[in-house]
Amino acid sequence: MKVWLISVLVGAAALTVGLLLGHFAIPKDGGTEQGAPLAQDIDEELIQSFMDGIDVQRIEEDLRVLSKKPHMATSKGDTELVKLLLSRWSDGESGLDEANKVTYNVLLSFPQKDKPNRVTVVAPNGTELFKSRIKELNYTQDQLDPDVVQPFAAFAPAGTPKGKLVYANQGTMADFRYLTQDLGIDLNNTVAIVKYGGTGRGDKGINGAQFGVVGVIVYTDPADINDGRVSDLNETYPHSWYLPPSGVERGSYKSNFGDQLTPYYPAKAYTFRQKETDIKGLSPIPAQPIGFEDARHLICALGGVEAPSEWQGGLGCKYRVGPGFGNPSSFENSDVQVSVFNKREVKPSDNVIGIIRGSEEPDRYVIYGNHRDSWVHGAIDPSSGTAVMLEISRVLGKMVKHGKWRPRRSIIFGSWGAEEFGLIGSTEWTEEFYRILTQRTVAYINVDIAVFANATLRVYGSPVVQKVVFDAAQQVPAPGHQDLSVYSNWMRHSNRTSPRHGIIPHVGTLGAGSDYASFFHYLGISSMDIAYTYDRSATKARIYPAYHTAYDTFDYASRFIDPGFTSHQAVGRTAGNVLLRLADSTVLPFNVSDYAEAVRLLYTTAQDQLGPELSKRDISLDSLRGAVEQLNRASESFNRQLSQLQDLRKKPLELRRVNNQLMLLERSFLDPLAFPDKLYYRHVLYASRSSPVLTFPGLADAVQRAKGSTEPTAWDAVCRHLTIVTHALESAASVLDGPLPG
Amino acid sequence: MKVWLISVLVGAAALTVGLLLGHFAIPKDGGTEQGAPLAQDIDEELIQSFMDGIDVQRIEEDLRVLSKKPHMATSKGDTELVKLLLSRWSDGESGLDEANKVTYNVLLSFPQKDKPNRVTVVAPNGTELFKSRIKELNYTQDQLDPDVVQPFAAFAPAGTPKGKLVYANQGTMADFRYLTQDLGIDLNNTVAIVKYGGTGRGDKGINGAQFGVVGVIVYTDPADINDGRVSDLNETYPHSWYLPPSGVERGSYKSNFGDQLTPYYPAKAYTFRQKETDIKGLSPIPAQPIGFEDARHLICALGGVEAPSEWQGGLGCKYRVGPGFGNPSSFENSDVQVSVFNKREVKPSDNVIGIIRGSEEPDRYVIYGNHRDSWVHGAIDPSSGTAVMLEISRVLGKMVKHGKWRPRRSIIFGSWGAEEFGLIGSTEWTEEFYRILTQRTVAYINVDIAVFANATLRVYGSPVVQKVVFDAAQQVPAPGHQDLSVYSNWMRHSNRTSPRHGIIPHVGTLGAGSDYASFFHYLGISSMDIAYTYDRSATKARIYPAYHTAYDTFDYASRFIDPGFTSHQAVGRTAGNVLLRLADSTVLPFNVSDYAEAVRLLYTTAQDQLGPELSKRDISLDSLRGAVEQLNRASESFNRQLSQLQDLRKKPLELRRVNNQLMLLERSFLDPLAFPDKLYYRHVLYASRSSPVLTFPGLADAVQRAKGSTEPTAWDAVCRHLTIVTHALESAASVLDGPLPG
Repeated sequence: MKVWLISVLVGAAALTVGLLLGHFAIPKDGGTEQGAPLAQDIDEELIQSFMDGIDVQRIEEDLRVLSKKPHMATSKGDTELVKLLLSRWSDGESGLDEANKVTYNVLLSFPQKDKPNRVTVVAPNGTELFKSRIKELNYTQDQLDPDVVQPFAAFAPAGTPKGKLVYANQGTMADFRYLTQDLGIDLNNTVAIVKYGGTGRGDKGINGAQFGVVGVIVYTDPADINDGRVSDLNETYPHSWYLPPSGVERGSYKSNFGDQLTPYYPAKAYTFRQKETDIKGLSPIPAQPIGFEDARHLICALGGVEAPSEWQGGLGCKYRVGPGFGNPSSFENSDVQVSVFNKREVKPSDNVIGIIRGSEEPDRYVIYGNHRDSWVHGAIDPSSGTAVMLEISRVLGKMVKHGKWRPRRSIIFGSWGAEEFGLIGSTEWTEEFYRILTQRTVAYINVDIAVFANATLRVYGSPVVQKVVFDAAQQVPAPGHQDLSVYSNWMRHSNRTSPRHGIIPHVGTLGAGSDYASFFHYLGISSMDIAYTYDRSATKARIYPAYHTAYDTFDYASRFIDPGFTSHQAVGRTAGNVLLRLADSTVLPFNVSDYAEAVRLLYTTAQDQLGPELSKRDISLDSLRGAVEQLNRASESFNRQLSQLQDLRKKPLELRRVNNQLMLLERSFLDPLAFPDKLYYRHVLYASRSSPVLTFPGLADAVQRAKGSTEPTAWDAVCRHLTIVTHALESAASVLDGPLPG
Repeated sequence: MKVWLISVLVGAAALTVGLLLGHFAIPKDGGTEQGAPLAQDIDEELIQSFMDGIDVQRIEEDLRVLSKKPHMATSKGDTELVKLLLSRWSDGESGLDEANKVTYNVLLSFPQKDKPNRVTVVAPNGTELFKSRIKELNYTQDQLDPDVVQPFAAFAPAGTPKGKLVYANQGTMADFRYLTQDLGIDLNNTVAIVKYGGTGRGDKGINGAQFGVVGVIVYTDPADINDGRVSDLNETYPHSWYLPPSGVERGSYKSNFGDQLTPYYPAKAYTFRQKETDIKGLSPIPAQPIGFEDARHLICALGGVEAPSEWQGGLGCKYRVGPGFGNPSSFENSDVQVSVFNKREVKPSDNVIGIIRGSEEPDRYVIYGNHRDSWVHGAIDPSSGTAVMLEISRVLGKMVKHGKWRPRRSIIFGSWGAEEFGLIGSTEWTEEFYRILTQRTVAYINVDIAVFANATLRVYGSPVVQKVVFDAAQQVPAPGHQDLSVYSNWMRHSNRTSPRHGIIPHVGTLGAGSDYASFFHYLGISSMDIAYTYDRSATKARIYPAYHTAYDTFDYASRFIDPGFTSHQAVGRTAGNVLLRLADSTVLPFNVSDYAEAVRLLYTTAQDQLGPELSKRDISLDSLRGAVEQLNRASESFNRQLSQLQDLRKKPLELRRVNNQLMLLERSFLDPLAFPDKLYYRHVLYASRSSPVLTFPGLADAVQRAKGSTEPTAWDAVCRHLTIVTHALESAASVLDGPLPG
């Protein structure tokens, strides 16, 4: 019996030692040259094995399935994908712990199938001289589906305005001002044709309406999207990645994101809905997008004076501004009519939520998401991202189901609905769970379009996540290169000189281009958006040419965007690596000094570009500089103390405190009073900005407005924003200071 | 050597067992009949010894010192008290770990010493027929000081308006409407005399100005404060606690709290200050308070019709409304002039902050505070509370300095400045540390006036603190009673029937009467205000009669408010007991089911009192009821799971999670968008309310406004508030639900 007991004890002891070793094993070299080598004790072998598991063939196969049918939000195709995601995440072999559907009733906008939108040229006698195409041409087998929705400007109001055509470049305020003030053109009752770019989609109609324009036609200029290629015989898809002449970019024509009837509150059955007429930021006039084949008929027939050289484009003719068609031309004296029959409708849109419950800190969340809905087949936008998400969740789910691993923190996957209609699914979800998400979420990772092009990684993110992204990217081989990491390849394509780190890859700031917007700007959660993208020396395309058209298909993706799917794999490995580090590191892999550096850069830009103007008004930046330095000192001191902490795993409360400081730093930059006129924007460092000065947005905009104002109190708003920023920075420093206030 | 080793080991083992026993000892009976018996493992002996240490003589002696000189905010007396507090909290024997001064530059208002404010009666020929007193009479030795500040209406503008006198009862909108609409009196260019009560101080001038009133005189009617006593020969102080005829109630005449130039931001050197003309909620016309001796001269000489019976008071004459004096009367045809020379000034005001650093969770705060500034000597308001705070901090400081104890969480004591000018010191401090306080504060305990009267405990507080207050009050003997606890005595004076607990003491809701306001309404920190107060069968006094007058002295306090200081001691024991439980309990001693019960009561009131009106408009309360039930289920389930958790001290992360849920429940009820017009109010359950219906304030007020409106959209605001409350309740439930969303 004794021998039996001893052997059991020995065995148990050995097991314990093994478990402890496994549990506490420290990697040889988790740190990079970025920041202090923080205690991470993450299982590097596990990360390696995760990355090895990311399978190009499965991504390819998933993308084929995901993009088989058009899947616009709430369509039959979308509903089928909801089922697919639910079934994948509930799978017994590689599913997650939980998978749920969360539905919101949100305002969407649709064209009418039997009453297609059109742009027509109408002769004085009423004859239709020209009719725009209803849908894209079908160039290749089985890529256009009867369910393809005709191009439309979502949320643009219905109406059939008619008038003389003018060409207004990109439809910016400056463009319309040029036509009226410089050229003396009366824009009242005209129809404006404008190209994509330069403004938000909805802004083109909003701007035009202020000048009396009654309808807007938006087209994609080949100069902006096709590097000038226009021929469908051999230059454009299916012969290359360039947009065929019939391709039309769809999109939402609204300025604000989220459900427009229920701002700040989840669009549930009980939720109060404002009147449609109270919605702000929608185009007030009918609008319709067309392809450049149709645009050529209109623009190349215009009369009037020649447009300035910067307004010229790739249609192969001299662009004139109108109003009206040339004399002589086949459309002489004719009007253009924009016939829009869009209907707005409240419809149920689903998010699919998949969860892996954390072992140690289930109440800390790392969220990874992408939208599911597309405009047409959406192979690239968004299914490239969804295929990557499915592959990451499959590999992790399998590890969990097989009992090999469970993350320290909870991982939440989100497949958002109705993103194309303005980030609706993600916004409603963050509204519904606003309180617990702000209290508990460590980070949000967004991978929407996983691969725009297969040249290099591209990351937008909070400065605090720079380090973890770099750590991950260093471990992933760059597709198409031997002995080059994604990190090194990225640095070759896009870099900057950091005062602390020297030359490093460039991480961009987060706008509101995808579902990270409400996580970051409204909830103050450290977020990032990861993708593979262009070699900018090889193309000037505004975006990949098939974007939001019927040509964004599996065939297009697999032949022209990422043959072999190795860039998809690289994104999956990088984003998954980041996800694992965030979910598993003992100490969160955030570097607060990188944030302080970013803030200092915002400050020096303010000092350089706004300082002289402010001095003239006796407005000092001294307090702001003081706060910048305070944050800098606090972050250095935080990192120093963190590097001295030993055995944090044995001091869970101390660990939790440090991690809370790391998690909540981003929240310090929120101020719900900073931007009363900007829906959801609360982040005083990175809110949207009208001024071109790349600094604190409230400050930059207030200065811009004050300079353009004759009100003696206009500069008060500048001082008010200086207070807001200074106070936010001091607060951020206090979050990093010791555990006590003051 | 072996023997030596063994004995050391045995000793060490014994020590360990002892430490563990001491550490984990569970009290026999910490629970009350309230709620689930939560694991608290607090050291009950330590609490008992703390309570035994609260010394009446020290409280008395401290109160004598604290109230020796007048100590209006920023005065010499105030500055001396700042030093006193700093020195006490830095004391080597019984001081705290840290003591700091935090200063804000805030807008205050002062009379001019050499240009005293006056109310005069001016005959048509310009002769002054009557002059109000500048200061109170000096009845007893050494209680009035040359530094006593003349009575004034802080923040009332300077000016010397003159006009016919009218008597307008309490100066409510209804009162002024009665005079104009029912009696047909033209109030333009009149001076109104009104009594305290019925409205905020500043509202009397705000209301009057809307009817053309040019100046306001505010007096204290003996019927409201003195149970009718008016004689200074034997009925009033120094013969009793009643107010002498010359006593004048000072106060701030403003509707909003905090520094008026820097709403939402700390009043630091860099902070943007709005223009004084942009301040909202100040009396737009000069105002001056007077005593009832002076008021009698004015009111008893008025002409015009008799005031209604509810407007009559205790001045010993028939009150008439004017306008102008009676015919005949010695003031016939005379005007009344209100001469106010107040000056507004930005001055530095200090908070003194004392800290005991927590051992296990230094980043969790229990805050205990009171203001330091008074209007005159302020023996009761606020020094009764300050003396109690000093005694609590002395006993705790001694335990810390002697190495006997250190709280699990950090304890922060705050001595706030400029409360009398509108809760300024506490508000600025909560603004400065907004982020870390909302992230880390467990509770705020306020003891301002510790003893109004010596009859019974009185508590205002968040429903979630009911249990810990009850637990504490049960352990404190009621002063003046044998074998009766503070709890049982309280229940005899003021109780209610709880659906869950049966008959229990009544805990009131938190308004904005003292420094808890910004902690609770702006930061959403579970707060309470604790005092000893009246036997309402013995007096109808609106407040203790010397309130805000020069008679609030040590002599008054020690002879008429709390002879023997045993009620001070009881408050110190109760509040200190609560403080210790909050700081030391393993699981926070909050009962979430008590919150759910309070919410249900708000709901049933809405259903009963607003429901019929809402049904008429087809507005359903079903979703709100659903959310109420959801919160109820979540709280029951939370308590059930909590009671099943074992050995939480050994599972620090699980413990931390549960405590975060308990701490953050209150925060769930905040919505920064709920009350855009109410400065600082974000708590959707307890914000200020105009409607008399005791339910969700936004809902009640929206219904009241809609009922009085002919706008077809007026009921939209009701639906909007239903959404706000429903969403807040659902969010609160999600905070209590498991660790994951959805």
